Amino acid sequence: MKNKPIGIFDSGVGGLTVAKAILELLPNESVIYIGDTARIPYGTRGRDVITSFATELVEFLLKKDVKYLVAACNTISATCLEEIQKLSPVPILGVIKPAAKEAIKTTKSGKIGVIGTRATIGSKIYEKELKILSPDVEVTTKACPMFVPIAEEALGRHEIAKTMAYEYLTEFKDSGIDTLILGCTHYPLLREVIQEAVGNEITLIDSASPTARLLNEELEKNNLFNERSAERKFYVTDAPERVFQIADVFLGKHVVPTLEKVTL
Amino acid sequence: MKNKPIGIFDSGVGGLTVAKAILELLPNESVIYIGDTARIPYGTRGRDVITSFATELVEFLLKKDVKYLVAACNTISATCLEEIQKLSPVPILGVIKPAAKEAIKTTKSGKIGVIGTRATIGSKIYEKELKILSPDVEVTTKACPMFVPIAEEALGRHEIAKTMAYEYLTEFKDSGIDTLILGCTHYPLLREVIQEAVGNEITLIDSASPTARLLNEELEKNNLFNERSAERKFYVTDAPERVFQIADVFLGKHVVPTLEKVTL
Repeated sequence: MKNKPIGIFDSGVGGLTVAKAILELLPNESVIYIGDTARIPYGTRGRDVITSFATELVEFLLKKDVKYLVAACNTISATCLEEIQKLSPVPILGVIKPAAKEAIKTTKSGKIGVIGTRATIGSKIYEKELKILSPDVEVTTKACPMFVPIAEEALGRHEIAKTMAYEYLTEFKDSGIDTLILGCTHYPLLREVIQEAVGNEITLIDSASPTARLLNEELEKNNLFNERSAERKFYVTDAPERVFQIADVFLGKHVVPTLEKVTL
Repeated sequence: MKNKPIGIFDSGVGGLTVAKAILELLPNESVIYIGDTARIPYGTRGRDVITSFATELVEFLLKKDVKYLVAACNTISATCLEEIQKLSPVPILGVIKPAAKEAIKTTKSGKIGVIGTRATIGSKIYEKELKILSPDVEVTTKACPMFVPIAEEALGRHEIAKTMAYEYLTEFKDSGIDTLILGCTHYPLLREVIQEAVGNEITLIDSASPTARLLNEELEKNNLFNERSAERKFYVTDAPERVFQIADVFLGKHVVPTLEKVTL
């Protein structure tokens, strides 16, 4: 069991920010990644559609005989984590709890902001998870739907990213929050403009490192560290030239060796 | 045969701009519309994925026993019209030829610009169709990928629409073109900022009215006008609250009576 791969799934290539953190913290682990680039974005869609797409991603990875699954997508983690966990014989880690835990550790004012897709924010999952960890925390949330297409078009530092960041985030500036959760795996690509819009006093938290650390703890606790050579496979459901370019932006120096196209 | 409905299909709700023109010109016709809102946008995807999605839309409408089909989507018309025409026992009208014909009628300088999704512009279909109609025409094209999410977020008159319009379209301003084809059914929602960016001397052409007129001619020529009472049905593959709001924006006064959700 321990020598099987970890399966990571996402609506597209945003989850590569999580995969990158996992590859850095757990370089000896085999990893299979699948991004549903043929149907991205998920964050603007309804709950039943997201659940049906996520189920197909889980089924794809289960056929690859994985030991552990990571839903490297806030929208999936927010809307249907419990449903897909019920379908899966191996555990599925979401990205919400790790980010919530990190935010609670970080905040001093007890006031936390959360930004994400319309589906993630509409689910109210962050409020729920944050209040489980710390019942008195005050949570302010905001959907920022334009951030995903901006990141996908590699316009994260463009004037329109700044314009939208100021428009979406100005309300956080004097709200008393000291911590802001980037509740979408695309948002780290807009980190600079987001920081500028909310001011330097607010700490930005993303899901990638906290999720990798939690996965590390889980593998250790369950004695699941790989003892063979590590392999890495990246699948996408649509692979026009652009996907390779964006994958490079998201994965940074861990250049994707091959992106294989599959149909779900 | 003549009393069967016209089937109109699109990647989402953008095709409602075409449906609206058809409903206005042919109020006695029964219409069935399907928008693949669960998988929109198509224009950023690869050719094989677009073809496979479009095939499912055609199959859905053929089961509804239609007499004529309209691909009310530039991306579908540009990438796979011939493939889906081969599958269909009823004719399929695309939106490229009607817009190209209208542009040739309009231009005096013989220089025409075309904007569209990355898939549409990459296909070079507009150059091909325009040069068939008028071999000496000069064609300049530009993909404007941010316009679809801007229209979908109802930000067509927002500052970011202006910013992107100036960035994408400034090159047209002194290019000598006198006619610009809005080669995507979403773009009429940015008509004002597009006109401002290219200047008032350039005439904007969209696919909606020319396609409706060509459909009218075809029905007349083939003696296919409906002689019974007209019915209208609108289907989408995902129907969160927002889709209803956007559908209203696109369809204008022809308010969508019911949007029924189906799975392809």
